[in-house]
Amino acid sequence: MNFKLIFSILGLLMALNGLFMLLGIPWAIYYHEDLMPLLVSGLGAMGIGVFFWQFFRRQVSVDEMNNKEGYLAVALGWLTMALVGMVPYLVSGAIPNVTDAFFETMSGFTTTGASILNDIEAVPRNILFWRSLTQWIGGMGIIVLTVALLPLIGVGGMQMFVAEAPGISPDKIKPRIKDTAVRLWGIYVSLTVIEMFLLMYGGMNFFDALNHSLTTMATGGFSTYNASMIEQAPFIQYVVIVFMFMAGVNFSVTYFVLKGRFKRVWADEEFKAYVVMTVLFIALTTIGIIRYTDAGTEKAFRDGAFQVVSVITTTGFVSADYSAWSPFLSVLFFFFMFLGGSAGSTAGGVKIVRHVVLLKNSFLEMKRLLHPNAIIPVRLNGKAVAPNMTYNVLAFIMIYITVFVISAILVGFTGLDLVTTLSAVATSLGNIGPGFGGVGPLNNFAAIPTATKWILSFLMLLGRLELFTILILFTPYFWRKV
Amino acid sequence: MNFKLIFSILGLLMALNGLFMLLGIPWAIYYHEDLMPLLVSGLGAMGIGVFFWQFFRRQVSVDEMNNKEGYLAVALGWLTMALVGMVPYLVSGAIPNVTDAFFETMSGFTTTGASILNDIEAVPRNILFWRSLTQWIGGMGIIVLTVALLPLIGVGGMQMFVAEAPGISPDKIKPRIKDTAVRLWGIYVSLTVIEMFLLMYGGMNFFDALNHSLTTMATGGFSTYNASMIEQAPFIQYVVIVFMFMAGVNFSVTYFVLKGRFKRVWADEEFKAYVVMTVLFIALTTIGIIRYTDAGTEKAFRDGAFQVVSVITTTGFVSADYSAWSPFLSVLFFFFMFLGGSAGSTAGGVKIVRHVVLLKNSFLEMKRLLHPNAIIPVRLNGKAVAPNMTYNVLAFIMIYITVFVISAILVGFTGLDLVTTLSAVATSLGNIGPGFGGVGPLNNFAAIPTATKWILSFLMLLGRLELFTILILFTPYFWRKV
Repeated sequence: MNFKLIFSILGLLMALNGLFMLLGIPWAIYYHEDLMPLLVSGLGAMGIGVFFWQFFRRQVSVDEMNNKEGYLAVALGWLTMALVGMVPYLVSGAIPNVTDAFFETMSGFTTTGASILNDIEAVPRNILFWRSLTQWIGGMGIIVLTVALLPLIGVGGMQMFVAEAPGISPDKIKPRIKDTAVRLWGIYVSLTVIEMFLLMYGGMNFFDALNHSLTTMATGGFSTYNASMIEQAPFIQYVVIVFMFMAGVNFSVTYFVLKGRFKRVWADEEFKAYVVMTVLFIALTTIGIIRYTDAGTEKAFRDGAFQVVSVITTTGFVSADYSAWSPFLSVLFFFFMFLGGSAGSTAGGVKIVRHVVLLKNSFLEMKRLLHPNAIIPVRLNGKAVAPNMTYNVLAFIMIYITVFVISAILVGFTGLDLVTTLSAVATSLGNIGPGFGGVGPLNNFAAIPTATKWILSFLMLLGRLELFTILILFTPYFWRKV
Repeated sequence: MNFKLIFSILGLLMALNGLFMLLGIPWAIYYHEDLMPLLVSGLGAMGIGVFFWQFFRRQVSVDEMNNKEGYLAVALGWLTMALVGMVPYLVSGAIPNVTDAFFETMSGFTTTGASILNDIEAVPRNILFWRSLTQWIGGMGIIVLTVALLPLIGVGGMQMFVAEAPGISPDKIKPRIKDTAVRLWGIYVSLTVIEMFLLMYGGMNFFDALNHSLTTMATGGFSTYNASMIEQAPFIQYVVIVFMFMAGVNFSVTYFVLKGRFKRVWADEEFKAYVVMTVLFIALTTIGIIRYTDAGTEKAFRDGAFQVVSVITTTGFVSADYSAWSPFLSVLFFFFMFLGGSAGSTAGGVKIVRHVVLLKNSFLEMKRLLHPNAIIPVRLNGKAVAPNMTYNVLAFIMIYITVFVISAILVGFTGLDLVTTLSAVATSLGNIGPGFGGVGPLNNFAAIPTATKWILSFLMLLGRLELFTILILFTPYFWRKV
């Protein structure tokens, strides 16, 4: 294990983190707030970061890394970001204790959006901007991670779509990573800017529009309002629905959309499933809201569409209390938490492509039972999925459920009720944000016991890094010398 | 498809069902109850059954059946048993409506134990005996099914343990099916009789002792008392704990225990996992009960052991309101519903051997990621599990979860709350009996909406017949001509 290389990467990440913090300073000046917390934290992080980076400097190139160093760098990288990123909260006193500050920062960088802030609007604007920015940085990190890094170090679920990424063929993937990442980042940045202008057009001020567009495109869900999106105008809510939906699309697919290659877009089975699923669930929810509440049709459709898209894409903005509609819709939304957006988007969770493979495989198993000697592979986008890939998808979902169960038992042990426990774990692991019961859409995570906050923070990281990246570090295989 | 063969089998089953009904008549005489309902139903079923059996008579031998006929015969067989078996309830007026009578009978033959009876003690004894007997017959059916029939028609999960069944080697399995079934039935009958005597020794009368031993060994859980096992003496509760545990052991393992071949018993990984798991969960539950309630140590241990074993083995007897202990224990017990006893026992649910394969496979997936070119199979009892078997186990668990989710959404639509919905579906699919909330240990299924009762009845059958046996009938592959 080349620890020098890893330290060097962590130093670079720390320095970049500090640089991003400094971006909040103009807001402090504009709103006449104390700029010292961000300045001190930012410069401190940059100083220490640059020192580590230079001190351990090797030629930091992905080519030099082996699998194991890749896993370790990603896991420790995200952890470092959260540890460094919480300093502004602590220094400014906006979040005075370490557990809460770490929880909020991890919730940011993992694009989860679960918050411990009881009064968001009382927090200085420059700190709120940093809070939104952590999600946007997290989203950016996920794009480079899923497009470029994870396939290299072999986390299988993602390889499926990488073959579809613009300009990449699996055999000559390395030379083009940088191109691809830059291209997809371009889309990410552009959509963020467009959404911001649309929100301003709808009446939001520059600050709020920027913050909400940062956290929409990251499928993060941090809001600068205590009431999230509940009190916003219909136009703004519709804009957010559309951009949440886009943030949940594989960015490579969006690239093809922009290139006008619609045939290729519609050939993507995950995209098709995503569209069909979203439409179906919005219809079902809208009918449910009309049936069980006294909301009018437009409001029912808007709230239904908003919450379905918000939960499926793992964003977590709230436009209505979905937990109060009806028991049936609660059941439905509980299961929505296990869907996740598309692979290659900023969405967390299981991801739709995995569900597609899972369902196809389950169905084919019956065929296999009737024809025990035939070899019957799952087919995706017209091609047979390699058996080890199918295995990986099944193993991922199994581990996801196992982690869910074990965590729920641990969290339950700290004293929360059944519904709060199940939904807090599901929402953290799926990087969504709100849940049900004590962590429902109108509540937050402030009142959760300290031990549970640490467990949930860990789950956010675990879910965000596709389980394997973290769990593999705890296996004997990882540390065994070859 | 040889429908004549299938009708002939269904006729035979119907006739046997009628014969079993007549066994309740002595109780009607002894307790001075109306013997007509059982007599009429029994003779009627025998008459019609014998007619069908003889009319469509071919040489009814397993050798003549192909896969597809096997699946259809098993699925329709269980359905026929339930349809015929509900007649005594209707004729006697003990359960006057068809939905409830079908639910109670299906709950019987699938060894589930969920009941719609509000006042069990008001039902005539001879009808209660029939109710208990449906479970015992169901358990008997499951033994022959999992030992003999399912492996022949290729439902994979079971093949793993069949190789371990006494006197059977996979290649010459057919000639010995009858021997094996008879041998395991011998164990089943003997344990039932022994438990009955122990319960009588503990103070139960002959009738109650017989009924409870019938439903214990079937891991059924129907009781002749309104309060199930709550008011019973500690000795009786301990006896039931021990026999529930034994009923959840693979009967082939029990056979080796009786033969004194303990080395072979302890080599069985499923058995080891079952023992370790049970001990661990009893300890955890006992600690929980002591911590959260004011129960003394012995009572906490007894209630904890009783409920852990009752739920894990999918029996469903109740000795205490496990849903009222603490939120944490509710979370724990909710997940216990997904364990299931051993394959080759009368227990329902997922089964421990599948969990063992699942966990091993998940763990090995990390190894596969680090060594992408190595072929790394799951090993069980010292042997590599064939890839198609591992696939089958994974597919089974995935389908189990998918069915759980879709059913919960359907059941939620009929208006039950989240906890009642989730647990009603889990307990029906897992053939357990009681759940949480509206179907908790002190409640029953009487107040559940009619549509939901039919859904839950279907789930009981689906779970009992290992999903595939039923679902395969709904695939195009099944009905396609070769």
